[in-house]
Amino acid sequence: MKRKYSIGLDYGTNSVRTLIVDTANGREVGTAVWQYEHGTAGVILSRDPNLARQHPADYVKGAEISIRRALRAAGNAVAGFAPEQVIGLGVDTTGSTPIPVGSDGRPLAFQKKFAGNPAAMAWLWKDHTGVAEAAEITGLAEKIRPRYLAKCGSTYSSEWYFSKILHCLRTSPEVFAAAHTWVECADWVPAMLTGTEAPERLTAGICAAGHKAMYNNGWGGYPDAEFLAQLDPALGALRSRLPRQVHAIDRAVGGLTEEWAGRTGLPAGIPVAVGAFDAHLGGVGAGIAPGTLVKIIGTSTCDMMVVPCGQPLADIPGLCGIVEGSILPGFYGLEAGQSAVGDIFNWFVQYVRPGGRKAGSHEALSAATAKLAPGESGLLALDWNNGNRTILVDQRLTGLLLGQTLYTTAAEIYRALIEATAFGALTIINRFEEYGVKVAQIVNCGGIAEKNPLVMQIYADVTGRPMKISRSAQTCALGAAIAGAVVGGAYPDYHAAQGRMTGLKPRVFQPNPKAHATYRDLYLLYRRLHDAFGTKEWAGNLYDVMKALLDIRNRVRT
Amino acid sequence: MKRKYSIGLDYGTNSVRTLIVDTANGREVGTAVWQYEHGTAGVILSRDPNLARQHPADYVKGAEISIRRALRAAGNAVAGFAPEQVIGLGVDTTGSTPIPVGSDGRPLAFQKKFAGNPAAMAWLWKDHTGVAEAAEITGLAEKIRPRYLAKCGSTYSSEWYFSKILHCLRTSPEVFAAAHTWVECADWVPAMLTGTEAPERLTAGICAAGHKAMYNNGWGGYPDAEFLAQLDPALGALRSRLPRQVHAIDRAVGGLTEEWAGRTGLPAGIPVAVGAFDAHLGGVGAGIAPGTLVKIIGTSTCDMMVVPCGQPLADIPGLCGIVEGSILPGFYGLEAGQSAVGDIFNWFVQYVRPGGRKAGSHEALSAATAKLAPGESGLLALDWNNGNRTILVDQRLTGLLLGQTLYTTAAEIYRALIEATAFGALTIINRFEEYGVKVAQIVNCGGIAEKNPLVMQIYADVTGRPMKISRSAQTCALGAAIAGAVVGGAYPDYHAAQGRMTGLKPRVFQPNPKAHATYRDLYLLYRRLHDAFGTKEWAGNLYDVMKALLDIRNRVRT
Repeated sequence: MKRKYSIGLDYGTNSVRTLIVDTANGREVGTAVWQYEHGTAGVILSRDPNLARQHPADYVKGAEISIRRALRAAGNAVAGFAPEQVIGLGVDTTGSTPIPVGSDGRPLAFQKKFAGNPAAMAWLWKDHTGVAEAAEITGLAEKIRPRYLAKCGSTYSSEWYFSKILHCLRTSPEVFAAAHTWVECADWVPAMLTGTEAPERLTAGICAAGHKAMYNNGWGGYPDAEFLAQLDPALGALRSRLPRQVHAIDRAVGGLTEEWAGRTGLPAGIPVAVGAFDAHLGGVGAGIAPGTLVKIIGTSTCDMMVVPCGQPLADIPGLCGIVEGSILPGFYGLEAGQSAVGDIFNWFVQYVRPGGRKAGSHEALSAATAKLAPGESGLLALDWNNGNRTILVDQRLTGLLLGQTLYTTAAEIYRALIEATAFGALTIINRFEEYGVKVAQIVNCGGIAEKNPLVMQIYADVTGRPMKISRSAQTCALGAAIAGAVVGGAYPDYHAAQGRMTGLKPRVFQPNPKAHATYRDLYLLYRRLHDAFGTKEWAGNLYDVMKALLDIRNRVRT
Repeated sequence: MKRKYSIGLDYGTNSVRTLIVDTANGREVGTAVWQYEHGTAGVILSRDPNLARQHPADYVKGAEISIRRALRAAGNAVAGFAPEQVIGLGVDTTGSTPIPVGSDGRPLAFQKKFAGNPAAMAWLWKDHTGVAEAAEITGLAEKIRPRYLAKCGSTYSSEWYFSKILHCLRTSPEVFAAAHTWVECADWVPAMLTGTEAPERLTAGICAAGHKAMYNNGWGGYPDAEFLAQLDPALGALRSRLPRQVHAIDRAVGGLTEEWAGRTGLPAGIPVAVGAFDAHLGGVGAGIAPGTLVKIIGTSTCDMMVVPCGQPLADIPGLCGIVEGSILPGFYGLEAGQSAVGDIFNWFVQYVRPGGRKAGSHEALSAATAKLAPGESGLLALDWNNGNRTILVDQRLTGLLLGQTLYTTAAEIYRALIEATAFGALTIINRFEEYGVKVAQIVNCGGIAEKNPLVMQIYADVTGRPMKISRSAQTCALGAAIAGAVVGGAYPDYHAAQGRMTGLKPRVFQPNPKAHATYRDLYLLYRRLHDAFGTKEWAGNLYDVMKALLDIRNRVRT
């Protein structure tokens, strides 16, 4: 029997990756990355530090080039490999990254009159120009539609769909007026590949709609027109032009067009799955299942879980989303996360640049840090340099470092920053469990999980739980390829596909009981700082925090 | 009329300086510094990081060499200068730096059997081996002699006289047993120069006795024998062998011996003033007077004021000392201070080593820091890396930095550290004024005041008060020389001597009203952190602190 392959197309912030996978076992047989051409490393910036856009032309060219190159790589790697063996294709992208499109479903950015206008491009996930509009949406929902907020951590973010659209309406009305509707990048790419861009044919994914656009079948889909109209009548009028068909990733949006078959070398007509966000398909690629927390650890983290739809599930305060079918069909997808993890370590290395000439790299700091015992530095930090996504949902929180003496070293600070992110991770785990979602195992993926054993060991020691690592180094693209395999018919469902196509690395980081005991004490202090600076309700003093750290330090050192 | 000169002999932590001054106008005509020979830069260390000792031999050799060299320098600088024109000599030293001496008044360290025994040497001010004993003394005094603590900030320090003696008794009983008594370095050097070391002839200074040994005429001098005996009977027995004559610096302890005249080239018989601590004579050299706060800013600070003895004066909580005559005869000497100032900047540069290869020096960080506006970094720090001396009197407090984002730079942190020390300085000023001691002008001296205009400007902007700088760069040695001039008969009293021999530099750092307005807001936040982490009484939350910093930042940036 001939082997079958599927393709994952993974659109990141700076580049797009194509991954070709053997559907029988998840083996990755070919891959190619293409860096976007526009802007700075693919991101169009301006003097406004909140602005971040992408040019949709990069999505088009990136698909063509990366697929062709990946097919060539697979051909070189596997004897007898032929593009005709590819049975399906899945897409994951960043998000919320909405694109204003015309009545033909094509991005406005492709029209001559909008060429070079950032408002007509894709509004990248990290664009924060809609801060005021986000506050406005949150405020109105609190007043008249509190249920809209209950599923998204009680705050509507400036990174999300309607904040961006409303900001466009307010600041670039000519673009808003020209836009027939707004399509998430995760939906537009599958539509492009299958020729289903036209509004009447367009299919949107529940992942983006549910997590970023308050879409919920419980209240009839997107927020109602009355709500949107109170924000702005023009936004109310947009309601009827929002995508009508919204599905989970077990559905195909269509078959690959003849044109795209010609551009890529793939067979025409192979099914393209409904698109989803990178983190969510990363969860799929890491083998997510009930009881498994998948942590995608990079510059920030996404912490994903699933709960079977039949099972009772409370609203969990602070989670940025609970959406039916957003990760796996038939399961609630639960999304939590930390606003910065790798970004905090990068900040210390790149902005503070500690340690003098040679000692300031991640490698050197990690090596020095690894020699330290938990608690011996007397330091404690909060992991809020980029705000707190879960459980406080507050982007205006900032970092804190406490316990410095006249002898505190850069390596000690570096370790305190790693520990702070571990305490943040534990806070998320606890929040899941406080609301009845048991965390039976933790699977990590992403660059830091792959490359930094020190971080993984500290996470194990802090949480008191084994840290497992996903087998694939490309879990997002692998998850997209699994979607391609499922819609391509290789498996009847995701459970079966994941069973064959995902796996864990043999090395598991086990918690050290002695280290964990120290971290239990440190976490109590972390939680006091967390609650004192992060919540309105906390009252008390912090008089003994510095002393308690010294006591722990003395205990550890002797 | 022939010019008259006086000599200040200034014993620091690493070296001794001789300064020769024209008594008519304070002109500094000759100076010489001699680095101690023993230990590491003059400090004898051990594996115990709390231990810091000096060898008294360095005090002897240092006097001889530095005086001879300074006389030579004066001869080279001033035509017709002759050593015979020197009319008196004053001495300042670090402290509390007690020396165990035999029944002849000679340091035990000079006896063969104790050679090389650190317990028989001088117990340098920063020796902290007596931490447990300090707590014991504080605890007993709280119970049975609370008045002893009321004049020294409510806590007896491990740096002080009896903590060190008691620790010696406990850990080196053979040294304690061999010691007839313990003499402060500030008292032993004048005794050495005048041949008055023998116990019956020895004169102690009120400065050391009052600030470090709980000496107070109000309760009959040193703590009573009953109190000391409760700590240890052997300590109670020592009470009767403590120095009997205790005086202020307007008295001479004797005349220079023939031997010392021969060793130095000075005229025999010239009077040597009662010794005092460097900071206190630094206050004299900076022109201290009622209403003038003298800040000696170096690795740490001493903040000195005087109040006329007739005037009512409350116990001021948190001050490390209120001692009659400790700075100027006829005035209460008030001593406050910050445990670390320059040491915090040095910590950042030397231990964190920020900014990469070239940008990490004090000079480069200061230059980058000077370009920042108050509040624009969104950072706030506490200046507690070495604990807090005034007003919290708590050595177990540690540092705190708050407000870091992913873009915070090393220069911003450096500025936040400077600002933190300025807020600490303002807290001391406020404490003086809260208890009725008006601060009419501030005179700064010491290395940082001399060399770092950025720090001085930030201090002016934070406090909203002009920062003046003492004219002399050697205020401690100048203060000692003024003592030499007074006991040498050049002036009837210190007021007259200071009027002629001290002065200010022409450059005064004036507060910038706009910067001060921002710092007023920041100081309110600093005080909340200060009270939350530093006092048992404070209760509240700190929820809005990070946001308030962002609001200030946004206001400042626009």
